[in-house]
Amino acid sequence: MQYQRKLVLYIAMSLDGYIATKNDDLSFLSVVEKEGEDYGYQAFTDTVDTVILGRKTYDKVMTLVDTFPHAEKETYVITRTQQPSIGNVNFYTGDLNDLVSGLKSKPGKTIFCDGGAELVNELLKLDIFDDLIISIIPVLLGDGIPLFKPGRHEGKLKLVSSKSFETGLVQVHYLRD
Amino acid sequence: MQYQRKLVLYIAMSLDGYIATKNDDLSFLSVVEKEGEDYGYQAFTDTVDTVILGRKTYDKVMTLVDTFPHAEKETYVITRTQQPSIGNVNFYTGDLNDLVSGLKSKPGKTIFCDGGAELVNELLKLDIFDDLIISIIPVLLGDGIPLFKPGRHEGKLKLVSSKSFETGLVQVHYLRD
Repeated sequence: MQYQRKLVLYIAMSLDGYIATKNDDLSFLSVVEKEGEDYGYQAFTDTVDTVILGRKTYDKVMTLVDTFPHAEKETYVITRTQQPSIGNVNFYTGDLNDLVSGLKSKPGKTIFCDGGAELVNELLKLDIFDDLIISIIPVLLGDGIPLFKPGRHEGKLKLVSSKSFETGLVQVHYLRD
Repeated sequence: MQYQRKLVLYIAMSLDGYIATKNDDLSFLSVVEKEGEDYGYQAFTDTVDTVILGRKTYDKVMTLVDTFPHAEKETYVITRTQQPSIGNVNFYTGDLNDLVSGLKSKPGKTIFCDGGAELVNELLKLDIFDDLIISIIPVLLGDGIPLFKPGRHEGKLKLVSSKSFETGLVQVHYLRD
């Protein structure tokens, strides 16, 4: 049997489909902050050994922290500008399909796409996600950076689960059908 | 005690936030068609005595049927062009806030906003919806007419319920917070 790793999108959006304001502000997430509730994030990242994320998202994260949060995992920052690796963090300028297909063909744990919207939409166009896990925040942000951009193809999904939480967050989990 | 009627949005969208393709095609809804399952639509419309909808949506509906589906309810088609009423169907060219405030100030049952996106976004800008009931269809439509358009204000919501169905439809119900 061929082993097949999964590429998973795990992300939060407002009900109106934004992942941040136009100024990259994420403070709308605070409405679901609750002590001791991580909405399954730790359990999910425990299944992950590889992270891919866009360069702008990486830069944004690094303005907020000293050490990359997934520093112990194999990480690929998708960028147009070559630069030397920093520990496990690699800067990847090649073909995205080759990267993901290559990772999927090797044994390993889940590959986590940590955003942002530009990378997500490139991966959606390649139809290469296995699972989408989206936390819907009970907010209408009104404007911002949309998770889904127009200009993709239609694709069916299979609902795996839907969970709602006391804070009003609804987490939906789909497989590509 | 002042009686307060509710203005409710009850609508279906794809996971990527579209209510139809750019050509007004609704065939993506067929993935959740199941005999005997109406996702609560009849029970909802039983609470409704007044319907408001946009003129383009009304015209689209009337290309599909001979008799307006809500003909027995008081109906307001929001339009820029005056025309005589047809039975209970009134064509309203006045101020939208006045219409809804006027309806809400009178006793009656639920006021159902039946779309389309243009009217929904005008009502969202007026911050006049009481409830949003959105059925998320397990499809990425890829492109189309977005339910939520940018350029609104931020607003918090309160989750009332979230239900998932065998077909993969997830229905979320929010109150304006």
